[in-house]
Amino acid sequence: MAIDFDVLVIGSGPGGYVTAIRAAQLGMKTAIVEREALGGVCLNWGCIPTKALLKSGEVYETLDHLGDYGLSVEKRGYDFAKVVERSRKVAAQLNSGVGYLMRKHKIEVIEGTARLEKGEGAPKAVIALKAGGERTVQAKHVILATGARARTIPEIGLEPDGERVWTYREALVPKAAPKSLVVIGSGAIGIEFASFYRALGSDVTVVEMLPRIVPVEDEEVSAAAKKAFEKRGLKFRVPASVKKLTKTKTGVAIEIEAGGKAERLEAEVAIVAVGIVGNVENLGLEALGVKVEKTHVVTDAHGGTGAPGLYAIGDVAGPPWLAHKASHEGIHCVEHIAGLKPVSVASPIPGCTYSNPQIASVGITEAQAKEQGREIKVGRFPFKVNGKAIASGELEGFVKTIFDAKTGALIGAHMIGAEVTEMIQGFTLAMTLEATEAELQATVFPHPTMSEAMHEASLDAFGQVLHM
Amino acid sequence: MAIDFDVLVIGSGPGGYVTAIRAAQLGMKTAIVEREALGGVCLNWGCIPTKALLKSGEVYETLDHLGDYGLSVEKRGYDFAKVVERSRKVAAQLNSGVGYLMRKHKIEVIEGTARLEKGEGAPKAVIALKAGGERTVQAKHVILATGARARTIPEIGLEPDGERVWTYREALVPKAAPKSLVVIGSGAIGIEFASFYRALGSDVTVVEMLPRIVPVEDEEVSAAAKKAFEKRGLKFRVPASVKKLTKTKTGVAIEIEAGGKAERLEAEVAIVAVGIVGNVENLGLEALGVKVEKTHVVTDAHGGTGAPGLYAIGDVAGPPWLAHKASHEGIHCVEHIAGLKPVSVASPIPGCTYSNPQIASVGITEAQAKEQGREIKVGRFPFKVNGKAIASGELEGFVKTIFDAKTGALIGAHMIGAEVTEMIQGFTLAMTLEATEAELQATVFPHPTMSEAMHEASLDAFGQVLHM
Repeated sequence: MAIDFDVLVIGSGPGGYVTAIRAAQLGMKTAIVEREALGGVCLNWGCIPTKALLKSGEVYETLDHLGDYGLSVEKRGYDFAKVVERSRKVAAQLNSGVGYLMRKHKIEVIEGTARLEKGEGAPKAVIALKAGGERTVQAKHVILATGARARTIPEIGLEPDGERVWTYREALVPKAAPKSLVVIGSGAIGIEFASFYRALGSDVTVVEMLPRIVPVEDEEVSAAAKKAFEKRGLKFRVPASVKKLTKTKTGVAIEIEAGGKAERLEAEVAIVAVGIVGNVENLGLEALGVKVEKTHVVTDAHGGTGAPGLYAIGDVAGPPWLAHKASHEGIHCVEHIAGLKPVSVASPIPGCTYSNPQIASVGITEAQAKEQGREIKVGRFPFKVNGKAIASGELEGFVKTIFDAKTGALIGAHMIGAEVTEMIQGFTLAMTLEATEAELQATVFPHPTMSEAMHEASLDAFGQVLHM
Repeated sequence: MAIDFDVLVIGSGPGGYVTAIRAAQLGMKTAIVEREALGGVCLNWGCIPTKALLKSGEVYETLDHLGDYGLSVEKRGYDFAKVVERSRKVAAQLNSGVGYLMRKHKIEVIEGTARLEKGEGAPKAVIALKAGGERTVQAKHVILATGARARTIPEIGLEPDGERVWTYREALVPKAAPKSLVVIGSGAIGIEFASFYRALGSDVTVVEMLPRIVPVEDEEVSAAAKKAFEKRGLKFRVPASVKKLTKTKTGVAIEIEAGGKAERLEAEVAIVAVGIVGNVENLGLEALGVKVEKTHVVTDAHGGTGAPGLYAIGDVAGPPWLAHKASHEGIHCVEHIAGLKPVSVASPIPGCTYSNPQIASVGITEAQAKEQGREIKVGRFPFKVNGKAIASGELEGFVKTIFDAKTGALIGAHMIGAEVTEMIQGFTLAMTLEATEAELQATVFPHPTMSEAMHEASLDAFGQVLHM
C-alpha cells in the first residue's frame, strides 16, 4: 500500500492539532482524524468554554461588592441562557479557528473514527467516516492524541445521566443553574464548576476523598484555597468518600462517609469530577502490542509506543492531563521525527485552576521536596501587603517559592490569588532556564504590580524580603 | 564630629525606603530623612493612589458592557468622594506600612528637610526638623533619593493652580470629576488620568507634542493604544504644541497648534503631565561639587556622585523615572557599599502604563533596534486569536517581540492588552537571564492563558507561530 501521509494525527484537541501544525511547518504531509469536533474536548467541552462561564461568574461576583470601589448598581441579574450561549459561541469560534489553521497549513482533516491495523513500517488507520463508509490511510508516522474522558464510578451509582448527575459536559450546558449542587472531586475541574455555580448563587458542597482540596497543589495553597472558597459560601466535606448515589424526587442524594460518620447530602444535581481516563479503547492497540497502563499508553521519552511508527502524546499518554503538556509533547515528537534537536520534554509544566481566587503552580511542592530528601529554602509573600493588590482590592492569597538550598535553583513555585494564572509563566520560564535565586533577585519586577510578590517570595527564601 | 550612621538616605519614596531596608539587612546602622510623608510621591501621590482610582474606573467601565457576559444591572453609578476616599485610604495604609518596616528594621526616621555640607569623608546633613529646630547628622554614606516633581511650563501660563490647572497631585483629589478635561502630555501619567476620568464619563482630550502618544513605547503600541483609547471616546491632538493657557469663566482655554493650524480647546480643567524634574535644589550640591545635568545628579555605575561618600539613586539620578528602577539602583548601591557583589545595574527595566487597555514593555523598540543597526527578528501575536482572551472578552492588543537575529537573544518585548502589566515580568526575567528564542520556545506556557500570546509572539519571530 502506498504511503498517504508523512504524519497522521489521531485526535484534534490542542495536543493533536498543534502537533499537526508543527509537522506541516516542518514540511511533512500531514492529516488529522477527528471523530467529533475540531479542537477536541479542551476546546469544545473543557478549558475554553469553562473559562467563558467563569468570566461571567467572576464579573457577576464583582457586582456584589461594588461599594468597595465607590460604585453602585441598583439590581444585578443574569440571564443563564445567555451566559451559556456566550460560552458555546466562544467554543464555536475557536473550533472554526482550528479549521482555518488546518486549511492554512494544508492539513487534511478526516472526519471519522480511526482504528489501527498493522501496516508497513507504521500502522495503517482504518477510518469509519462520519459521512459513511470507510477509508484506509497509511502514514509513515501515526501520532495518537485521542485524549481522555471523565472517569465515572458506576458501582456506587455514579453513572452520569445528564439530568441529576453531570460530568463536565452536562455542567457546561444546563438549562438553568441548579439551586443546590454537590461536586464530587476537588481537582481543577471540580473546583472550577463549584466556583462558577457558587458565583451565580447556587448552594454548592464539594466532596473530596483525599485529605485536602486541590490535592495536587502545595498544602499551604490547599489550606488558603479552602478558606477563600468558604468565605464565598462554598461548603466542603474533606476527606470524605462517596458511598452511594440515589435519585430523589427533586434531585439526588449523596451518601458520604467523613471521619467515620455517615452523612446524607441532598441536591438538585451532582457533578462528577473524579479524574479522567485515557481514550485507549477500540483503537486496535492490543494487536499492535502497545502497552497500556492505568488507561494510558506507555511511551518512551519521544512519545514512541514501541510499535513501529506509532507515537502517543497528551492525555492518552498519561498525566498531567493538561493541554499545554499535550501540545508540548506533540511538538517534541514531530521535531524528533524530523530529525531536529527537539524542544526538551523535561520543560517544567505549570498547572492552573481558574477559580476565584485563581491557583497556579509549577515544579514540586514543599512536601515533595522533603520526600525527595532535598535541602530547601522556602519563601513566602502574601498579596495583602502588596501595593498593587491593596490598590486593586485583591488581597487574597500569596506566592510561595521553593529553592534547592545547595544549588540555589528554583524547584517549585505556588501561587493563589487574582490573575496568578497569567503570572506563573515567569516562574515557569525561570525554571526552564534553570534560574537561581541570585538571578530572580536581580530581576526588576515592575512597580506597582502583583507580580512583585514573586520577587519578594524569592527574596524571602534567602532572608532578603523587603516589604514584610 | 562623630559618625551617627553608616547610611543616611534622604527621601523615603520606594527607592529611598527600600535602600534603607537593604542597608539595615546588611547590618548597617541606617537612618532616613523625609520632609513630607513616608513613601514619597510614588506611594502617597503617584503609582499607588492612581492604581486605586484606575481600579474603580476599570470596574465602572465593565458595568457598561455586562450584556456581553449575559449579565445586567439596572443603573450604574459612582460616588466620586468615595472613589477618592478609597484611593487616599490605600495610600495611607501603605504609608503606615512603610513606617512599620522602618521600625522593624530599626531604621531611624528623621522628619525634616536635609541640606548637605562638607563633612569628614562624607557630607554631613543639616536637617531642618518638621517639629522645629535643626539636627546635624553625619553618616559614612549618604544616599540621595529625593525623587522628582511635575515639570511645569510657566512661560505659557501652565502654572498649576489646583483649580483649573492640575498636576498629578490635584488630579488625585478633586471634589468632583470634571465634565471636560484636557490632558497635556501622553506619557504614562497623562494617559492614566485620561483613562480614569474618561471611564467615569468625562469628556477628555489629550494633547501630545511628539508625533505619537505614549511616545516611549514601540510605534505599533502607540498606534494600537490610540485606536483603543479613541474607541472609548478619548480624543487626541497629536502632534500638537500648547501655545497658551488662559482661564475662562467656567474653566480653562488651551490654545494649541496642530499641523500648522491654531485651535482653541476649552475645558473645565487642564492636567499638566509633561514630564518631571529632579529634586536637586536646596540640597547644597553645588558646594559639594556634585554635577547636575538636566535637573538630575550625574552618577557613576554604582550611584556615586564624585563627592566622597555621596550617592544618588532613582528619579533624582535620572530616567527612567520608575519606582522599581529607583529601588533596584538603591539595592545595588548599598550592596556595593557593603562590599558585596551587587545585583547588576544592567538589569532590564520594564515600564507599565495602567490605562485600559494596559501597556507594558521591556528592552528596546523596533525603531531603536534599527537605529542601532541591529539585524532583528520581530514576532507579533494579537490577543484576538488567543483562546483565553476570547473566553474573557479581552480581545484588544497584542504582544510584539524583538530578537537579535545573530545571537537569538530577546532584546525587546512590547505588550498592550488586559493584564499585560502582570505578564511583562516573564519577558523581563527572560532578558535578565539573556534568554534566546530557543529557550522561550521550549518554555511551556499554561493553556488557556493570555500569556500564551507571549510564547506565540516568540515563535512568530522565527516562523513557528502556531495559532495564526
